[in-house]
Amino acid sequence: MTDPTTGGDRRTHLSRALPLDRFNAFSDGVFAIAITLLVLELPVPTGDDLLASLLEEWPEFLGYLISFAFIGMSWMTHARVTGFMKGGDTAAAGLNLLTLLFIALLPFATSLMVSNIGGPDERVAVLVYGINVLIASVMLTLLMAYLVRQRTLLQGDVADETVAALTRQRRISNGVWLVAVACALIAPPVAIGLY
Amino acid sequence: MTDPTTGGDRRTHLSRALPLDRFNAFSDGVFAIAITLLVLELPVPTGDDLLASLLEEWPEFLGYLISFAFIGMSWMTHARVTGFMKGGDTAAAGLNLLTLLFIALLPFATSLMVSNIGGPDERVAVLVYGINVLIASVMLTLLMAYLVRQRTLLQGDVADETVAALTRQRRISNGVWLVAVACALIAPPVAIGLY
Amino acid sequence: MTDPTTGGDRRTHLSRALPLDRFNAFSDGVFAIAITLLVLELPVPTGDDLLASLLEEWPEFLGYLISFAFIGMSWMTHARVTGFMKGGDTAAAGLNLLTLLFIALLPFATSLMVSNIGGPDERVAVLVYGINVLIASVMLTLLMAYLVRQRTLLQGDVADETVAALTRQRRISNGVWLVAVACALIAPPVAIGLY
Amino acid sequence: MTDPTTGGDRRTHLSRALPLDRFNAFSDGVFAIAITLLVLELPVPTGDDLLASLLEEWPEFLGYLISFAFIGMSWMTHARVTGFMKGGDTAAAGLNLLTLLFIALLPFATSLMVSNIGGPDERVAVLVYGINVLIASVMLTLLMAYLVRQRTLLQGDVADETVAALTRQRRISNGVWLVAVACALIAPPVAIGLY
Repeated sequence: MTDPTTGGDRRTHLSRALPLDRFNAFSDGVFAIAITLLVLELPVPTGDDLLASLLEEWPEFLGYLISFAFIGMSWMTHARVTGFMKGGDTAAAGLNLLTLLFIALLPFATSLMVSNIGGPDERVAVLVYGINVLIASVMLTLLMAYLVRQRTLLQGDVADETVAALTRQRRISNGVWLVAVACALIAPPVAIGLY
Repeated sequence: MTDPTTGGDRRTHLSRALPLDRFNAFSDGVFAIAITLLVLELPVPTGDDLLASLLEEWPEFLGYLISFAFIGMSWMTHARVTGFMKGGDTAAAGLNLLTLLFIALLPFATSLMVSNIGGPDERVAVLVYGINVLIASVMLTLLMAYLVRQRTLLQGDVADETVAALTRQRRISNGVWLVAVACALIAPPVAIGLY
Repeated sequence: MTDPTTGGDRRTHLSRALPLDRFNAFSDGVFAIAITLLVLELPVPTGDDLLASLLEEWPEFLGYLISFAFIGMSWMTHARVTGFMKGGDTAAAGLNLLTLLFIALLPFATSLMVSNIGGPDERVAVLVYGINVLIASVMLTLLMAYLVRQRTLLQGDVADETVAALTRQRRISNGVWLVAVACALIAPPVAIGLY
Repeated sequence: MTDPTTGGDRRTHLSRALPLDRFNAFSDGVFAIAITLLVLELPVPTGDDLLASLLEEWPEFLGYLISFAFIGMSWMTHARVTGFMKGGDTAAAGLNLLTLLFIALLPFATSLMVSNIGGPDERVAVLVYGINVLIASVMLTLLMAYLVRQRTLLQGDVADETVAALTRQRRISNGVWLVAVACALIAPPVAIGLY
């Protein structure tokens, strides 16, 4: 007789391999810090006319908004996906770290993009940003796909339709980012619009 | 027969849509980081007379205090409001992200305000700060109002009076900030006093 | 018949007033961020002889160590004190925020102290640092004293001896810091030794 | 009759001495912040040719990757080790703080290393970085060794083989870092490869 919440040899072993609460706490921490560090890129204007200086900073504010929205939505997807987990293993933690690696890079990529909007290297900067976001998005999808394949890591009662819906959503999301990155090659402002 | 803590199809679905512990952990993270990042704005004085240099930095210390108090109180309200929740949905998460967006902006707005106190653009800076705080405060109220309307997101045994008391408190809070922002248009120092 | 973990009108009300897990998560966040931000003060040397430059930075490393140790120990005390709590109220949250205010200030005070060691204003800098630490220490004591007085906020089975032992420890700790601050007035290097 | 999850005098006392959830939340926070602060070292290029400037920053990106991987893996080990704990005591918290001290130092050591790659003091910088990582790794091992010796801090049902496997893994890990540090003395680029 195995207690469904703690027992079952394999399950105990899995949840011990990497406790789910630590997995989530660490991930939440990185998402929360990355999203809050974005504000450090906003330079405090020092010009004569404060209002004009603030308005001139629109690329910075736009970048802040885009990255905040992306990290926020990625966190929501992450919370949903791991909401179905009952524990992690080394591969899941590895994929998770790779996701977080590219989430944590976003403050850098955002800063890179906004400081080059309107400049000669706008295309490169917008492209680098798009690729960063795309990889983060794909990594999150890979993490989800891995968890779905290793059903032992999921809770027993996850409906197949829920998984299918999440998978569909990830595909659309990755597709949109792919199109945006392609746009960045041709018309950077259109790409920013798509972001 | 549905277990009140885990069962009920809709409830399970809702709590899975966005686990409450992740919702709270992420929000706590952003609040904690925003409140701690405030210290990075305090420039370490390098002048000849250290004591005089420190005293000259009073606007920075005042801004640190005001923003620390506001973020701290917002966190308390947030903790209280979500203390009644049993789970989140996408709209609640969206309103929460908007609240956090303006909380995370505060280190920037604080820095903007304190570096312009006594300067020619004091009015604009104090106004921008007040608007930032006001929007954060209103967003928190909207999040609460949404949760109250969607009673399915609340725990079953929340007393109506408690909700009414919290709502009243939010209204007063928003009102005070609105008055402060209005003051900023006419007399910036009075607005700082109100903050 | 009231369930000891969730029931009892007053208790439910109290724990709802401010859920303990949020109280702790937010506090842990601020402690963790303040302790990690300390590293941002360590300037990466750019001189010709890297080893000599690193050794010349000893005040920075010493400050890092002292502040890391103090924040770490304060966190331990905080975790122990709140380990006896069953919930918070507004006053407890206020005292907690005041504690965190001075904990979050420490990266600034540390930077101030180490950049003035050996300089003409060493005394002022060491004094400011000591006062910051002393206030943080006293605030933590006040928080504990408040919780002990409001026994309704404590778990029922906390032994009086445990409380007495913690109180004694806090008194000694505050006393040592007071002596260190007094030393800072006379002999700053001795104060640093005591820190 | 003692409830296995809360009862037993000694256990209660231990878990109260330092609640495990606080221990973990604080550690997760420091790991998450240290890993995310790494991005602040990546300087946003300002040169004429953005792509070339980005490619010239390869040491920074390499350092980011190495440190991200090391902190990520240390966090995994930490989560696994503390997954066996049922509570902490002062010595465990002290060893944990020492581990976190060197984890939190890594953004500094990384920055030091990457800004000296190819420079005259490459050897010193690579050595300092390696020593930092080695100490962090050894501290984590000491923490684990202490917990294993104080079996009262571990949950009752931890299999000896699991502990042995983790110990072996720590030894290999420490050994690799020791070899890498030794290499740094002779051939810094080889050491970077090993990192």
